[in-house]
Amino acid sequence: MVDETRHLIARTPEEFKVRQNIIVYPGHEVTAVEPASGRIRVLRREDGEEWWEPYDQLLLATGASPIRPPLPNIDAHGIYTVNSLADGIALRAAIDARPPHRALVVGGGYIGLEMAENLIRVGIPVDLVEQSPQLMTSLDPDMAGLVARAAESLGISLHLGEAVTGFEVIHGAVSAVLTDRGSYPAELVVLGLGVQPNSDLARAAGIPLGAKESIRVDPYLRTGIENIWAAGDCAQSRHVVTGRPTWVALGTVANKMGRVAGLNIAGVRTAFPGVAGTAITKVGTVEIARTGLSTEEAAAEGLLVASSTTTAKTRAGYYPGAERITVKLFAEVGTGRMVGGQIVGGQGSGKRIDPVVAAITARMTVDDFLHLDLAYAPPFSPTWDPVLVAARQLLHQV
Amino acid sequence: MVDETRHLIARTPEEFKVRQNIIVYPGHEVTAVEPASGRIRVLRREDGEEWWEPYDQLLLATGASPIRPPLPNIDAHGIYTVNSLADGIALRAAIDARPPHRALVVGGGYIGLEMAENLIRVGIPVDLVEQSPQLMTSLDPDMAGLVARAAESLGISLHLGEAVTGFEVIHGAVSAVLTDRGSYPAELVVLGLGVQPNSDLARAAGIPLGAKESIRVDPYLRTGIENIWAAGDCAQSRHVVTGRPTWVALGTVANKMGRVAGLNIAGVRTAFPGVAGTAITKVGTVEIARTGLSTEEAAAEGLLVASSTTTAKTRAGYYPGAERITVKLFAEVGTGRMVGGQIVGGQGSGKRIDPVVAAITARMTVDDFLHLDLAYAPPFSPTWDPVLVAARQLLHQV
Repeated sequence: MVDETRHLIARTPEEFKVRQNIIVYPGHEVTAVEPASGRIRVLRREDGEEWWEPYDQLLLATGASPIRPPLPNIDAHGIYTVNSLADGIALRAAIDARPPHRALVVGGGYIGLEMAENLIRVGIPVDLVEQSPQLMTSLDPDMAGLVARAAESLGISLHLGEAVTGFEVIHGAVSAVLTDRGSYPAELVVLGLGVQPNSDLARAAGIPLGAKESIRVDPYLRTGIENIWAAGDCAQSRHVVTGRPTWVALGTVANKMGRVAGLNIAGVRTAFPGVAGTAITKVGTVEIARTGLSTEEAAAEGLLVASSTTTAKTRAGYYPGAERITVKLFAEVGTGRMVGGQIVGGQGSGKRIDPVVAAITARMTVDDFLHLDLAYAPPFSPTWDPVLVAARQLLHQV
Repeated sequence: MVDETRHLIARTPEEFKVRQNIIVYPGHEVTAVEPASGRIRVLRREDGEEWWEPYDQLLLATGASPIRPPLPNIDAHGIYTVNSLADGIALRAAIDARPPHRALVVGGGYIGLEMAENLIRVGIPVDLVEQSPQLMTSLDPDMAGLVARAAESLGISLHLGEAVTGFEVIHGAVSAVLTDRGSYPAELVVLGLGVQPNSDLARAAGIPLGAKESIRVDPYLRTGIENIWAAGDCAQSRHVVTGRPTWVALGTVANKMGRVAGLNIAGVRTAFPGVAGTAITKVGTVEIARTGLSTEEAAAEGLLVASSTTTAKTRAGYYPGAERITVKLFAEVGTGRMVGGQIVGGQGSGKRIDPVVAAITARMTVDDFLHLDLAYAPPFSPTWDPVLVAARQLLHQV
């Protein structure tokens, strides 16, 4: 557990000023961008004052916001989204002030599962409702099944293939969640339904949008309007496997894009090559990672892919602490090009996705990958790393 | 600890027969190969009988043997090498029968350090003598310095830059180790001076040898003589960074070569692309990994390389269990091509070498590597993985 929330703040406005000479204006909102005149409209929330401010170069880094679908009573007390540090603090304070008898999480993705696990950990029974027939829809169903088992073993009650239709309310506060199959009592609800890019400001300024309404950018992170750039969760990316536009709202991608945008604005021409769709999380002690295309994503791209699933150990089988790991790899039939990977397993499993990330980015074939001289010693891996065993099996199918 | 030594046997001769129809002849030695007549001379140790046996295809997988330099009294009782399971069992039995007051390990490589650590663990004080001024000569001196600190923190007494000149003996058993600087009492000595390829049989048969007297092979693992193949610790490899012959005696490489040789002998044409020089080990809880070229190796190849060393955390800084990790990366000046990496750090550090292995094999530049979409979540990594932070720093030097 993290002792104090201030440890979660990377840099305060004061540190920005002292260390980097960047002036941060907290509590100020940009309400409009006027590209023709090169200025932005600023609203100071404190006193409601508004004025125009000129810019030479403008970077849009407006981020993303959690999705709150327009369901009956969605704005009742006790229904939370978790996006900012303030959200987390508010949720924690509410639980501490009046611990709920039951909580319900809507959505079986990364955020939903993390919230469910942590609610269970503080002693609150949790139902998790997910519209899809599986958790983590970015995984193939068989791999998601392993995640479901991990979630259930923590005591999370899963309700898959079930859609939330609204909320019952008593005195303005949520008391139950209604679905297309029934009703679940809950005094606390966490919505983990994903995020959407904050692109309204850009749209209103006539800046072209792209994938999933994110702000369209070129590899140098220029928008379609001169002197305006975009980076982070609000901006579009390119998928390194398909070469096509995609949208990924993750901290590590945002951070890399921020660096590239800064370099370009400062005149150092630098391309952002794109994202592989990598993600990692854990449910209890089970580590989960994925990259590239899943079976469903490959099909949507019209790619013919083969896959192979392997179960092995994280260390030499005889070595203490060797845990079960399942690896699924995907490659294009015909070319043998690696296009994705998914991993579920015990300690030491998750980061094994990283050589797969490098391989799909470098457009390696399964045969190239199979021969990689990955690190082996009994405390770290079987003689053939599990990702290579998966590749060895996949070789016969491409 | 592994409970029973039988767990360390991957397959018994009986299992080979039943599962794969491979007939193993234990206790039989091949004393000569006669390519002209296509036959081998077999000696049955049990009764000393010898005969000729014909072959259609012959695979030499004779392995490597520990180096035992011709020092005075090197064959005294109490001086061990550790190569086979039988060696380990004998050493363990000797310790259990009569625990030595002091032990000395000669050599500061992987085997030497592993032995020193395990002797300390069973309560035996250990001196370690290494001729080079640093441990693990495959690491750069600064990284090896971190390893030395880890070894010392376990209680191993290091004597670096000191050469063993011989052994003192009482009643046929070692009593002290003599060096060019002094003398150390020890009733148990373990030699960890590396291995040499078992290529005498090949040499005698007129099969050409290559790097470090290993058996020369082409990418299909054919030797210079028709119908004779070689694979594993006795065989030469190609370095994927330099493209030149090299020799690496490690289980994972041997295993991959064995597969490729088998496929080729069976008529499935498959090239072995080579090795990156990857290795991993641990000293106490400190994980150590390396791949590609070190500063010294790059210089020997006439490559102008830059390097950058970064210290970071294995997880998000605020996340419980985040440990210190030091990453050193190497790239060619001018082209920016990644040529190597070294890592020393706490739990979760070592296998981070694997994306570096993939990158140097794919001939990525530092800029390519820097943008890899490696997996991030607070329990697994800082927002920028430490290997990417190292690349970010290296970028300014290539």
